[in-house]
Amino acid sequence: MSERSPLAPALFPELPPVEGVRIAVTHAGYRYPESRMDLTLVVLDEGTTIAGVTTKSLCPSPEVEWCRERLSGGTARALVVSSGNSNAFTGKKGAAAAHAVGSRAAEVLNLNLDEVFLSATGVIGVPLPAERAFDALGSAAEALGSADWQAAALAIGTTDTFPKGATAQAVVGGETVTLVGIAKGSGMIAPDMATMLGYIFTDANVAPAMLQSMLNDANATSFNSITVDGDTSTSDTVLLFATGRTGSRIEGMDSPGADAFASALRQVCEDLARQIVRDGEGASKFITINVDGAESDESARVIALSVANSPLVKTAIAGEDANWGRVVMAVGKAGQPADRDRLAIRFGTVTVARDGEVVDGYDEAPVAQHLKGSDIDIGISLGLGDGRARFWTCDLTHGYITINADYRS
Amino acid sequence: MSERSPLAPALFPELPPVEGVRIAVTHAGYRYPESRMDLTLVVLDEGTTIAGVTTKSLCPSPEVEWCRERLSGGTARALVVSSGNSNAFTGKKGAAAAHAVGSRAAEVLNLNLDEVFLSATGVIGVPLPAERAFDALGSAAEALGSADWQAAALAIGTTDTFPKGATAQAVVGGETVTLVGIAKGSGMIAPDMATMLGYIFTDANVAPAMLQSMLNDANATSFNSITVDGDTSTSDTVLLFATGRTGSRIEGMDSPGADAFASALRQVCEDLARQIVRDGEGASKFITINVDGAESDESARVIALSVANSPLVKTAIAGEDANWGRVVMAVGKAGQPADRDRLAIRFGTVTVARDGEVVDGYDEAPVAQHLKGSDIDIGISLGLGDGRARFWTCDLTHGYITINADYRS
Repeated sequence: MSERSPLAPALFPELPPVEGVRIAVTHAGYRYPESRMDLTLVVLDEGTTIAGVTTKSLCPSPEVEWCRERLSGGTARALVVSSGNSNAFTGKKGAAAAHAVGSRAAEVLNLNLDEVFLSATGVIGVPLPAERAFDALGSAAEALGSADWQAAALAIGTTDTFPKGATAQAVVGGETVTLVGIAKGSGMIAPDMATMLGYIFTDANVAPAMLQSMLNDANATSFNSITVDGDTSTSDTVLLFATGRTGSRIEGMDSPGADAFASALRQVCEDLARQIVRDGEGASKFITINVDGAESDESARVIALSVANSPLVKTAIAGEDANWGRVVMAVGKAGQPADRDRLAIRFGTVTVARDGEVVDGYDEAPVAQHLKGSDIDIGISLGLGDGRARFWTCDLTHGYITINADYRS
Repeated sequence: MSERSPLAPALFPELPPVEGVRIAVTHAGYRYPESRMDLTLVVLDEGTTIAGVTTKSLCPSPEVEWCRERLSGGTARALVVSSGNSNAFTGKKGAAAAHAVGSRAAEVLNLNLDEVFLSATGVIGVPLPAERAFDALGSAAEALGSADWQAAALAIGTTDTFPKGATAQAVVGGETVTLVGIAKGSGMIAPDMATMLGYIFTDANVAPAMLQSMLNDANATSFNSITVDGDTSTSDTVLLFATGRTGSRIEGMDSPGADAFASALRQVCEDLARQIVRDGEGASKFITINVDGAESDESARVIALSVANSPLVKTAIAGEDANWGRVVMAVGKAGQPADRDRLAIRFGTVTVARDGEVVDGYDEAPVAQHLKGSDIDIGISLGLGDGRARFWTCDLTHGYITINADYRS
């Protein structure tokens, strides 16, 4: 693991066990040395429901296709995450490797193949050496226990500089349910699920269709509202497992506790998404972009993403330069309705430009002060309608170049 | 002018005068020290026709709006280019400044305001100090002469590290017509005309509608097929002036010499576009991306642009890493029809991946050799149809970060 990101949280959070979830991490030896765990096995109690979202890449890995095929079943019993090798773009060999890992997990756990889910992350283009997982899965199956979440968060990582975890609770039918999530991802983080894996586990009892709908909503404002470099991986997957051990059944949004559960889920997803951005390759600033006054929420989103992905905006923030001209440029190129002469731009709480020009008596000092911090807010008001969006991103630094001109992803 | 790009041509080309075109460069003092010329005045003979393309930014500069309003007239007598200040996002003050510069030029040259064209390039958000142009325009009008093209190419530049010029000839109705172009632009070069200015002058006699149609075609494969960082400026403009002094009139594509003229125009535009990429901020490699086998040309274009703008592809090339996995990633994220298992990727002339996996017996040595050079070719075959596209871009290096985390654009 490389030097810890300067934006990393001080500590990995305290994460409670989740009833019905057992985990083991082990070493398969896909790519990393023996001291580095690279295979994570999670076993879920019978009756666990599942929801998921996967990359929109049209060249996905066989593991992504594997998950897509099984998500419609709505139930899950196991998850195997391989790290160090994404098995992406490996043709028939890669598909066979995914099948071999899944089959071996089903065998050692005595499960139906349709309830085994797979992920792989790491180098593209090298078929996963599936046979290395065979013994590892056997020993993992014997080592299953109440979760060491941090060990799992470390094992699923690749270029991450810190393990990522989050938790929340909600009261459902008078009982307190727990949600715990872990995630990985640093570079290649962009909307539609870039190189990231996220797994959320809860002991709540949620019908599959409802679980999927809630995950779609939470995903929209979390994993789909972050970007590091605009690139999108072939392997991104977020899976949500509900073991059903606690609380009354949530069938729809009118079920008791549905709102509370949805809110807790959103909280976990947003926490993990922010941590992923905080681990953006070379990141030295965490940037929040708020757009309001757009013609629609979707229009606001396109504008926010255009600003968030602009290399010129990102380098300006790296240089602590209140360069609102570059923000205007990025709004202009988004191709969305915008009126130059109604546009207002804020850094932190200070409006620097309004009605298409710099504000009278603009004082750069408080803005410069804000830009010296590690958490930067850019506000954009279009003055056209009620559409709003929020995006999280990071700055673009020499660190990004150093990492990516060397590392073979 | 910063240190010359390592990708710059050895010399500024020999550019002939163009009949009917007179030029002067002078110092207005918008931003640069006195030794640096920052105002370029071009005067065209009566009867000159004009065509133009401008940025698709929805927050354009007043100079861009000024040109848009006048292009439909189809004729031109003068061009004023101010450099050091783009006058973009300056509200009513900026619009007034543009009007003042245009009016002054019309006054000193005794021209109709509708035939005076304007550009400005440089810092955003500071109204152009138009009064500084007043004396400068007067002295420029007295200094007009047969062109020193290199002086003009230098005067219109901002962050450029070398002046950009190109020429071609064509036979039209038995006479040889000349085309000469100059351009500026380094960062913020993306399709739809990023921070770039280009001016092409010819003594050919071309009807305005035909001139516009030919410019649109030439623009598509040149200035609109390049990208440096995916950002788009508020000020981009390409103008084409035809003084009509030589050759028979070209009214349509069936006029004598129309094909030859269109071909020469394309040659000049592509030459200038390549030079702009060769001056990409921090560029150390010139990258050509060829996509074929896509479902349509437009689909091929979207895929080529996705690869050309991918920070992970661009850093891999900077690192001389034959990382075809990142190319696959960028194809996958483009959202266009693609079949992972039919995809082939080439570096130089070597196919590294075919049918969705690395080729049997792949030998990295010749690919590594190609990547050590300064001109890199990436080929992508989708195997789906006949659609093709070509894009030019450059790598993403520490130099880009250094330039853009400091320079206030």
